[in-house]
Amino acid sequence: MNLPKQITLMDVSPRDGLQSETVFVLTEKKVALIDALIDAGLRRIEVTSFVSPKWVPQMADAAEVLQAVVAKHPDVTFEVLLPNEKGYERALATGLVKQVGYIVAATESLNVKNVNMSVADSMKQFAVMAARAKADGIRTRGTIGVSFVCPYEGAVDAAKVKAIVDDYVAAGADEVCLADTIGRALPHQVYDLFAAVKDKHPDVPLAGHFHDTYKMSCANVFAALQAGADIFDSAVGNLGGCQFAKGATGNVSTEQLVYMLNGMGIVTGVDHAKITDVGRNAQRLIIPAQT
Amino acid sequence: MNLPKQITLMDVSPRDGLQSETVFVLTEKKVALIDALIDAGLRRIEVTSFVSPKWVPQMADAAEVLQAVVAKHPDVTFEVLLPNEKGYERALATGLVKQVGYIVAATESLNVKNVNMSVADSMKQFAVMAARAKADGIRTRGTIGVSFVCPYEGAVDAAKVKAIVDDYVAAGADEVCLADTIGRALPHQVYDLFAAVKDKHPDVPLAGHFHDTYKMSCANVFAALQAGADIFDSAVGNLGGCQFAKGATGNVSTEQLVYMLNGMGIVTGVDHAKITDVGRNAQRLIIPAQT
Repeated sequence: MNLPKQITLMDVSPRDGLQSETVFVLTEKKVALIDALIDAGLRRIEVTSFVSPKWVPQMADAAEVLQAVVAKHPDVTFEVLLPNEKGYERALATGLVKQVGYIVAATESLNVKNVNMSVADSMKQFAVMAARAKADGIRTRGTIGVSFVCPYEGAVDAAKVKAIVDDYVAAGADEVCLADTIGRALPHQVYDLFAAVKDKHPDVPLAGHFHDTYKMSCANVFAALQAGADIFDSAVGNLGGCQFAKGATGNVSTEQLVYMLNGMGIVTGVDHAKITDVGRNAQRLIIPAQT
Repeated sequence: MNLPKQITLMDVSPRDGLQSETVFVLTEKKVALIDALIDAGLRRIEVTSFVSPKWVPQMADAAEVLQAVVAKHPDVTFEVLLPNEKGYERALATGLVKQVGYIVAATESLNVKNVNMSVADSMKQFAVMAARAKADGIRTRGTIGVSFVCPYEGAVDAAKVKAIVDDYVAAGADEVCLADTIGRALPHQVYDLFAAVKDKHPDVPLAGHFHDTYKMSCANVFAALQAGADIFDSAVGNLGGCQFAKGATGNVSTEQLVYMLNGMGIVTGVDHAKITDVGRNAQRLIIPAQT
């Protein structure tokens, strides 16, 4: 069994975990969450998104969050999600961004709901941004949402996902991520798709993003590990979901992945006891009745 | 990825699922549960145990349960768990038993708590029973409890488990089962141990028994599948646990395994919608306040 000795965990709770919550989480609480994640050992965090506050009010404090965390944690990679070139401008203006993420859904239905663009137009936008990012010394990740099953279109053709991966790589993406946005993938599918992508692009870092809707996330991570993925997204306390993707529930929890991976002797750098505490506290952030 | 085309699911909820419940589940309700499992497609069920009613009062109606189900379901394999030769006598006396199961824990601490015998003495008892069973035309399964982690002794040496497997096979067991009794196994360990056993005894049917305490059961089943296991235990509604094994929580649920395996194109013969309903109803059996 061919497994990596070490993997990178990206905790996405400040962005993916909180973005769909209707209660605005105060900037200082987001910053406290990020500090706690770092204290537990995380060295890569998806901190925020430069999306229109009109569509995602939870992320309205994107610049403030970055200002509060970047300078004091020089050894941490803070990734920000960008919906389009306008988001790129806003991120660039902070002078604090070294890594950006981008998502295209594998299906037209979900991509239109997410960003009101066709998949082809989304990929054209990415190509423009990726060229600018390269010139600006910013690293890019390209994620493919609903890489396995779409809530609107059902089973997704793997050939379509592979073609988008090729487009990402051709446009210069520094990393590719396959996302099971609604938690409907099964482990043999995960293995097959990740292995095919790794086989075609062996030098491109490959990430997996799994949700736990049907309790398959650990099996799917185990499958992706075997296929060569060595970066995984997760959110403390199973936070997350997606307001535009019907049926999406929480991400695989960081504490659960740390339990599994540390136990397997795969280095994550994250302390299980600490991250479990962070998860418990983080869940309180989204309780509407909190005081 | 080498996966079987078909597996056998043994639903263990009437025995493992209920045995530790303090509320006695009426015989007619147990029979209704068994009938419902069969209606959903199960063709192998661990129905009861011929253990002393003094220690496990829930199983006091073992003979009555068999009498109610065996004749009317000729195509179903009903397995009964036996703690010792006395249990074998009782099972034999019903004239209804064609398949018996036996458990030895991999650690002395748990085996003494379970059956008040050393591991060596347990294996001697099995050898006697297995010889009688062979003569009586009864099939035997040998299970090894806490094959990975024991709540009293911690990590279990794989060599010890493999030696017990060898003893089972030498004594004539028709099938061997490796059990993660408290749900502490991790998928790489499952793969390694199952693969080693399958490698040494390729012709002995190999079963896996997983609990979901740390949400690893699907990943562990996926690992065992890759290693050549093709029989899995599960209980509807995550019923189960073990009164003698501190920390044991429910079995992996039958509905969850059916979801995963059917989705992977591995034939289980079980209908997912039906088994999900059976699971919901089964959980009501163990609510103390039920009327």
